Amino acid sequence: MALDYDALNENVKKCQYAVRGELYLRASELQKEGKKIIFTNVGNPHALGQKPLTFPRQVVALCQAPFLLDDPNVGMLFPADAIARAKHYLSLTSGGLGAYSDSRGLPGVRKEVAEFIERRDGYPSDPELIFLTDGASKGVMQILNCVIRGERDGILVPVPQYPLYSATISLLGGSLVPYYLDESENWGLDVNNLRQSVAQARSQGISVRAMVIINPGNPTGQCLSEANLREILRFCYNEKLVLLGDEVYQQNIYQDERPFISAKKVLMDMGSPFSKEVQLVSFHTVSKGYWGECGQRGGYFEMTNIPPRVVEEIYKVASIALSPNVSAQIFMGLMVSPPKPGDISYDQFARESKGILESLRRRAKIMTDGFNSCKNVVCNFTEGAMYSFPQIRLPPGALQAAKQAGKVPDVFYCLKLLEATGISTVPGSGFGQKEGVFHLRTTILPAEEEMPEIMDSFKKFNDEFMTQYENNFGYSRM
Amino acid sequence: MALDYDALNENVKKCQYAVRGELYLRASELQKEGKKIIFTNVGNPHALGQKPLTFPRQVVALCQAPFLLDDPNVGMLFPADAIARAKHYLSLTSGGLGAYSDSRGLPGVRKEVAEFIERRDGYPSDPELIFLTDGASKGVMQILNCVIRGERDGILVPVPQYPLYSATISLLGGSLVPYYLDESENWGLDVNNLRQSVAQARSQGISVRAMVIINPGNPTGQCLSEANLREILRFCYNEKLVLLGDEVYQQNIYQDERPFISAKKVLMDMGSPFSKEVQLVSFHTVSKGYWGECGQRGGYFEMTNIPPRVVEEIYKVASIALSPNVSAQIFMGLMVSPPKPGDISYDQFARESKGILESLRRRAKIMTDGFNSCKNVVCNFTEGAMYSFPQIRLPPGALQAAKQAGKVPDVFYCLKLLEATGISTVPGSGFGQKEGVFHLRTTILPAEEEMPEIMDSFKKFNDEFMTQYENNFGYSRM
Ligand SMILES: Cc1ncc(COP(=O)(O)O)c(C=O)c1O
Ligand SMILES: Cc1ncc(COP(=O)(O)O)c(C=O)c1O
Repeated sequence: MALDYDALNENVKKCQYAVRGELYLRASELQKEGKKIIFTNVGNPHALGQKPLTFPRQVVALCQAPFLLDDPNVGMLFPADAIARAKHYLSLTSGGLGAYSDSRGLPGVRKEVAEFIERRDGYPSDPELIFLTDGASKGVMQILNCVIRGERDGILVPVPQYPLYSATISLLGGSLVPYYLDESENWGLDVNNLRQSVAQARSQGISVRAMVIINPGNPTGQCLSEANLREILRFCYNEKLVLLGDEVYQQNIYQDERPFISAKKVLMDMGSPFSKEVQLVSFHTVSKGYWGECGQRGGYFEMTNIPPRVVEEIYKVASIALSPNVSAQIFMGLMVSPPKPGDISYDQFARESKGILESLRRRAKIMTDGFNSCKNVVCNFTEGAMYSFPQIRLPPGALQAAKQAGKVPDVFYCLKLLEATGISTVPGSGFGQKEGVFHLRTTILPAEEEMPEIMDSFKKFNDEFMTQYENNFGYSRM
Repeated sequence: MALDYDALNENVKKCQYAVRGELYLRASELQKEGKKIIFTNVGNPHALGQKPLTFPRQVVALCQAPFLLDDPNVGMLFPADAIARAKHYLSLTSGGLGAYSDSRGLPGVRKEVAEFIERRDGYPSDPELIFLTDGASKGVMQILNCVIRGERDGILVPVPQYPLYSATISLLGGSLVPYYLDESENWGLDVNNLRQSVAQARSQGISVRAMVIINPGNPTGQCLSEANLREILRFCYNEKLVLLGDEVYQQNIYQDERPFISAKKVLMDMGSPFSKEVQLVSFHTVSKGYWGECGQRGGYFEMTNIPPRVVEEIYKVASIALSPNVSAQIFMGLMVSPPKPGDISYDQFARESKGILESLRRRAKIMTDGFNSCKNVVCNFTEGAMYSFPQIRLPPGALQAAKQAGKVPDVFYCLKLLEATGISTVPGSGFGQKEGVFHLRTTILPAEEEMPEIMDSFKKFNDEFMTQYENNFGYSRM
């Protein structure tokens, strides 16, 4: 029968999603058995105790319960600016949070997003070219669905990468064309490398149609420089590639020397013919930044140089599932137009968001330093995003033990780590990596006060593991 | 370039979604120009003034603003049972509404859904076989994605049908195999007809793998009888078809003689071998019933007789987009476990939901009667769901005028109706219908007090239209 394993769509079976893969499943089992698990496998800040920002939650709560707006006591629980904002957002809907919106999202919120992009980049942005989505993931899937026609269509994807890309490309039956980020250059991107990847794909009969960048990077944590972005855009222009700019971590920046610069801004700065021709789709979300509102499922994408007829096709496909959820659309509106100085809620909002961002910055440093103090572990600094991606140099004895256990070496290591410490990470192989090089990914999200203990427990496990398996034959890579 | 029209995935271009098609776009234009539009194209109750049920909105508002639970004034705005329920649902999350949940949805809510199904059907239901989704649409798309491998895989779909099915099958590159509902038999389903459809598809090299039923029907409004469901399940057993049971309108029932019966219950009643072998996936939503919480995007599907290994694959694919939105999961929990007699909020909840349901029942009758009073219009009674689907018998003069305008005849009629009255309907051709037979679909959702005026304005337009185009050569169909 059609839903027997042998009869399933092969693309469904082929795709892999390591962030919730073997390690996550094992961690969930252990949790059920009563073990304390520290879930650092997904960038899910609230699950690790980060508190939501108060103001946006007040606004959305009022939008969910609009009858409170007529209650004379509402001012006892909600500040006046939250009440005003709730009225504003309700006025943008046609029936409150319970009505399907336009399939592209509420026009009024798309306008606010466009204004945000204009302020950020200094260039105009058109609300008609902005679609709201149930999280950035859904937007990426929609766009890749338009691009991929079959197995000969290739998508350039960084390695290591966030597996949304590899999984979606498998699911849609396309080909992933890897380009490697250079760990020794702080996970930078070499355009010569890109050229080689494209040439190699072509020699295999694959036509490369799009390129993905993740900036700031997941799992790698780097911010792309302006010069690097310019090279990438020029490359896309020459090779006629659509650029998919995953910029969901644009607010998660931890080094002042490395600010976030959007692909759109760099493209517009480059001027004609680039700014008029390179097709770019940029993605953003309410899940990251200091918001971390993952469970709300709110995102947007902005299209640049996409012909109107294609925008219409994307609209049509979006309309099959009717509309993105409306409360997350309002979170998006709030994210792009937060309280301003002088507003009643401004001070609290600023204090909360600054608190989260500064703590993330400190945690990034504690983690990097912690990993670098461990035996056979080296780790680049997290410039942005929410992850640390240390390289784990496994001694031959460990490789052999992994083989005997029938596990990929980094999976073997991460499982042992999980059993010993409760720390649930993702093996680097889930993101793709070079032959014989092993990593793990953790988020930097555990509560700051727990961080030293977690790093101690990691170090203790790691150093014992290394000592146990070490011998004189060298490491997996120097 | 990959996002030029000519280069797009052909399946994207091929799919049609009439509910938000030409008529909807024209209506949106007219609205922008200042014309009053009555949107009856989508089953979107809140957009037409239906008020949300108070209790669930109170609970979800508190979940969005959990800090209120510590506020000594909370009792001034929220009843104690809403506060208790909010605490209950928050305790089922791991980090409130801002944390990604398990990709299948919160285990605690899935348990409540299973209990609801058990009470409804009198048979056990396993939470592990229930997945929460961002609306039923997303669930249907996930399952069809597993079933469809290519253009030789066929899905039996009723005609007329809700175009989610035709659009998704196109998008996934499968083949739609139509089976016709019999208008003269109150849109009943004849199993001989099904056999013919399958035989014809086979003769064209298509292997039929699944069958869709929509019960109660959209756009047709019929409830399938138990005998009919038994025949269908037997047919699926014999032909080894997965049955997709779209039961999103199970609470929208307007005739006591025609209750809703779930496919799962009938299957279990049939006993072995059927109950152990027929693969069934049933879909439900918070968008319909007396909830109408469309914009929240909450749904679930339950799987019966699907092997564990396949359930795992479906889990894996769901995990690519991380998790359904959490606030709608809580709406689902509330829908399947509403206030009970004795609860503080019970009376209000019962009054509100009864009010909505009874008004829908009256509106169904006003609409059917109104249509049947019009020239050349005949309409079956709406037993369930939210739609009226009158047949419009177009005189030859109208067919000719449509041809000259380059429009399908029912599109021509509906556009004229829209321009004349502001009533935005969907032409029957958007749902599929027999050659030369024309319909339109409206929802029964406009406010009850506006209904007489809407039907008058419809009648005036229709009767003038018919008179204008009528001549002695007869009608499109008698
Ligand atoms: C690089 C990247 N892109 C996209 C996403 C998806 O985010 P969401 O779908 O929650 O917006 C994530 C989530 O972790 C991510 O790391
Ligand atoms: C028959 C049918 N199935 C599914 C849906 C989708 O509902 P949702 O995705 O809002 O749950 C609809 C919506 O109108 C419908 O009519």
